[in-house]
Amino acid sequence: MLTIDKIFHASLVLKDIIRPTPLARAYGFSKDFDLYFKPENLQRTGSFKLRGSGYKISQLSEEEKAKGVIACSAGNHAQGVALAASKCGIRSLICLPENAPLSKVEATKGFGAEVCLVPGVYDDAYNKALELKEEHGYTFVHPFDDENVIAGQGTIGLEILNELDDIDAVIVPIGGGGLIAGVAFAIKSLRPSVKVYGVQAAGAPSMFKSIKDGQIGTLDSVSTIADGIAVKRPGDLTYELVSRYVDDIATVTEDEICAAILKLIEKQKMIAEGAGAVSVAAAMFNKFPIQGKKVVSVISGGNIDVTSLNRVIERGLMKSGRIATLMIELADMPGRLKDVSRIIADCGGNITEIHHERGNTQNIKDCFLRVDLETRNYDHVEQIKQALRAEGFHVVG
Amino acid sequence: MLTIDKIFHASLVLKDIIRPTPLARAYGFSKDFDLYFKPENLQRTGSFKLRGSGYKISQLSEEEKAKGVIACSAGNHAQGVALAASKCGIRSLICLPENAPLSKVEATKGFGAEVCLVPGVYDDAYNKALELKEEHGYTFVHPFDDENVIAGQGTIGLEILNELDDIDAVIVPIGGGGLIAGVAFAIKSLRPSVKVYGVQAAGAPSMFKSIKDGQIGTLDSVSTIADGIAVKRPGDLTYELVSRYVDDIATVTEDEICAAILKLIEKQKMIAEGAGAVSVAAAMFNKFPIQGKKVVSVISGGNIDVTSLNRVIERGLMKSGRIATLMIELADMPGRLKDVSRIIADCGGNITEIHHERGNTQNIKDCFLRVDLETRNYDHVEQIKQALRAEGFHVVG
Repeated sequence: MLTIDKIFHASLVLKDIIRPTPLARAYGFSKDFDLYFKPENLQRTGSFKLRGSGYKISQLSEEEKAKGVIACSAGNHAQGVALAASKCGIRSLICLPENAPLSKVEATKGFGAEVCLVPGVYDDAYNKALELKEEHGYTFVHPFDDENVIAGQGTIGLEILNELDDIDAVIVPIGGGGLIAGVAFAIKSLRPSVKVYGVQAAGAPSMFKSIKDGQIGTLDSVSTIADGIAVKRPGDLTYELVSRYVDDIATVTEDEICAAILKLIEKQKMIAEGAGAVSVAAAMFNKFPIQGKKVVSVISGGNIDVTSLNRVIERGLMKSGRIATLMIELADMPGRLKDVSRIIADCGGNITEIHHERGNTQNIKDCFLRVDLETRNYDHVEQIKQALRAEGFHVVG
Repeated sequence: MLTIDKIFHASLVLKDIIRPTPLARAYGFSKDFDLYFKPENLQRTGSFKLRGSGYKISQLSEEEKAKGVIACSAGNHAQGVALAASKCGIRSLICLPENAPLSKVEATKGFGAEVCLVPGVYDDAYNKALELKEEHGYTFVHPFDDENVIAGQGTIGLEILNELDDIDAVIVPIGGGGLIAGVAFAIKSLRPSVKVYGVQAAGAPSMFKSIKDGQIGTLDSVSTIADGIAVKRPGDLTYELVSRYVDDIATVTEDEICAAILKLIEKQKMIAEGAGAVSVAAAMFNKFPIQGKKVVSVISGGNIDVTSLNRVIERGLMKSGRIATLMIELADMPGRLKDVSRIIADCGGNITEIHHERGNTQNIKDCFLRVDLETRNYDHVEQIKQALRAEGFHVVG
């Protein structure tokens, strides 16, 4: 059974494995509440996952240690298990679907694991891992539904209370629920008056729905840029703990997640991955009653692919009206492009790209102009559209 | 005259104005040396500039304070002066060229300054500032060539020695030279054996050239993404101090700066602006003899426009071979695009964009295919090119 003593013990054991991640005060996020971040994106391996697997592995018997551990993951859990095993001097084998990004495979190897690439998708890799576990007697390290893993993640709760003893609420991302189960248990055991709120991506609301329905359900599919919390089914143990100790759960949209990542970059000079930023998005977009309160958002990880970071930034800029794309239908005749350019320049918009294409317009002689712009904000975008319309242009999007 | 006592005094005065920026250990940057960062990108206003203007303003007479201060800048200096003046309860006026980015204008106002937008370019704003200073008796706060400003920046040197007393070298960005003058003076006064290295962007090497020539020179033009250190002419006082106390100066290319920004994002989950990253680039690309040494790179600021961040990331990815653009000349006939797609897929490249255009090919019936790809590294790009050539495609770029 999970006890607070176990979490205290995990805290002691993990001292030599984890890096300290002191709370960082949020700057310029809101005047309505007092926000702090628990920056586990700065943790070793770039996420909190090392804590759970570190404690789990430390508690294995000598016999189990001698045989080694196995896990299945293409993400942060893989790297957590790999490093935790290396630190304990034991062998780890990570099963990954064959099409896993090369960067993740390399990172996992880099932390000392052997990697087994399995043809097919995640489920195939998972089944392969179970098979190998049976065959060789490895210990399977579950990413969340395991008491010792949960105890390890719970150390984050202890650290938060240790550093700031007058907080009102903690906001935590939820995937399978291991992180929030541990944090909520620790906090409610020691300071029951502190609220614990959970956040999921709207595109993967498995725990959110299960709690609402009063029973564990499995989603058919999940889709979100917060890939670290794209989990179809909560754990049995984590579901139990979340129902008991978590005050409320909310979901955030993809746009809200992107806006949070962008704000962390601009104000905090900090990189969070999608899963790590949902707790910040929930605070920014008023998902919980935290006005006037002192609040900690747990940023669970920072392992965002830089190629997708580019896309996120773009979406965040679009969402805040700092870039815009206009589709303008115009007569395919000399001089019209010049007029569009002039109007946009007069409004102070900065054109970054133009595509001019004949196509599926109502009048066969017309064409489409797609204009990408840098703008100040939504009002500025509207102002430019108005100016174009005032001179007779048909602005479609 | 600049004295170490003055820097100690500045340190005391600034306590209530600045935010602590403890050294951060670098992770995964190099096995050849032991690297730390002084993260002034996490300083209030997003750069170290607050220190210099904060100390300068604190030392004004009551009469001067009553009249207020004036400065000319479109960047970090503006925000530093604005906040420093607000903290001291005095009035500040910042002259900016009319075309300054709206975000900078807003940020400067946000820290409490009045803003005067001047038609023309930087020099016009500068002249306007001098004119207003004469007219109204404001004190002009120079961005670097001022003893008290330099003393304020020098507090960074004290803090570094305070935290790590066995370092071998400090690497510091150079624009006008205020930061490095203060840091070098502090470090050489207290621990002369510690090396102090300076870094400029290759596109704005004013101090580098002046020191090499043995006299101050003015560059005709400067061009770099490290806009915070794009200075045409070093200060007189800073030139003096740099010649005397700095061990060596190097320059870094635009690609090296982008690679450093990217690595800080991926490994350190941290955002630096171009000027802030040159000291990291210099370490990464072996500009100084630091093998086996304990080194601190000063990250001077983090105020990078997110729209240019996108471009930097792209360039960094390109430079490290993780994205590539191929220009392929091919016969404009059915089936050829299919072949290209197949070859690239077989090599494990991921196509993100394709443009197919007829154009300026040798054979009038041929056309160009521009293919944007995600790749693993340079070798991978070469491998894909080879495979295409092996099947008879003419790969141009």
